[in-house]
Amino acid sequence: MAHATVEWTDNLEGAFELTALLRLIADEMRLRSTGVFPVGGIRVRAIRLSDYVIADGAGPDDAFINIDVKMGVGRSEAFRKAFFDQLFAAVKDFLGDLFERRPLALSMYVEEAEGWKHNSIHRRFGGQG
Amino acid sequence: MAHATVEWTDNLEGAFELTALLRLIADEMRLRSTGVFPVGGIRVRAIRLSDYVIADGAGPDDAFINIDVKMGVGRSEAFRKAFFDQLFAAVKDFLGDLFERRPLALSMYVEEAEGWKHNSIHRRFGGQG
Amino acid sequence: MAHATVEWTDNLEGAFELTALLRLIADEMRLRSTGVFPVGGIRVRAIRLSDYVIADGAGPDDAFINIDVKMGVGRSEAFRKAFFDQLFAAVKDFLGDLFERRPLALSMYVEEAEGWKHNSIHRRFGGQG
Repeated sequence: MAHATVEWTDNLEGAFELTALLRLIADEMRLRSTGVFPVGGIRVRAIRLSDYVIADGAGPDDAFINIDVKMGVGRSEAFRKAFFDQLFAAVKDFLGDLFERRPLALSMYVEEAEGWKHNSIHRRFGGQG
Repeated sequence: MAHATVEWTDNLEGAFELTALLRLIADEMRLRSTGVFPVGGIRVRAIRLSDYVIADGAGPDDAFINIDVKMGVGRSEAFRKAFFDQLFAAVKDFLGDLFERRPLALSMYVEEAEGWKHNSIHRRFGGQG
Repeated sequence: MAHATVEWTDNLEGAFELTALLRLIADEMRLRSTGVFPVGGIRVRAIRLSDYVIADGAGPDDAFINIDVKMGVGRSEAFRKAFFDQLFAAVKDFLGDLFERRPLALSMYVEEAEGWKHNSIHRRFGGQG
């Protein structure tokens, strides 16, 4: 499985296409992970933030996008570095010159977790729940 | 203490009773943990998700419910397995045949944490803050 | 960097000033961390909770505020204890007698993480992205 949560401050409304960003992350997980992330377990969502204080609180245009990824235990360090370097670069490219046009902090964190699961989405991809 | 956060995709609106699910989780923590989770420290909340991409993004009915649990350090592995196996089974039962009726991914992750706390809810249950 | 997320139950609406609380946390990180947290990396946000079950679910005034902090790896245990003891005390002071006036649980958890980042907010403070 692979979960991603994209938090974004709402002063970025209109500055980037949210759905395209979510789709980019899901596509990277599906197409570039060489099968490490089963398709049916990819879950990318966004949280819109309306209340925030950034840095010294004095820059009304200060904004951030933060991506938290949770994935199963046991992927190699080599995979982890290669895949997430690529993912982060893709997100940065996607945002383009937005970093030049306004103060913007982008961050991404990855954690591993094992849990309980039951999933009927896998069926569409020929897998098990 | 025991925190639980239930994320759910809003295409499940009307497909299950959210408050009943939150209550079920809180009840399991209160009634089946043999006192491991002090009642006054049980906090279950939901996050409604409006923006998400699941799997290949091609199934408009693809949906997920994800439960993140945070609890104090030091519960035994035996307790942990027994309690959360039971909790997950209870949630699965609660959702019933929803897994057959649509593509749905249910997941639950548990982490331990120590922190700072001050709590006047405990008084109602005869405990301390 | 230092991230903080303040979750609060919406039955506290009007009981405290949310923006003032977020500002207090950002100010503590900026002014009392002796430079440990670069100013441009401070990101404090709130999540308003509308759906929740607390304790036995029988106290409609039961409320909670939970603060999750994420910071870079490598701060000393001494710094960590001193800074977060102080931060938690400041938040408790800020809430004042609210703990006496209603059942309220306050909690704070701190985790360390390393990740990927790119940040044009730092420029305003003479730092790098």
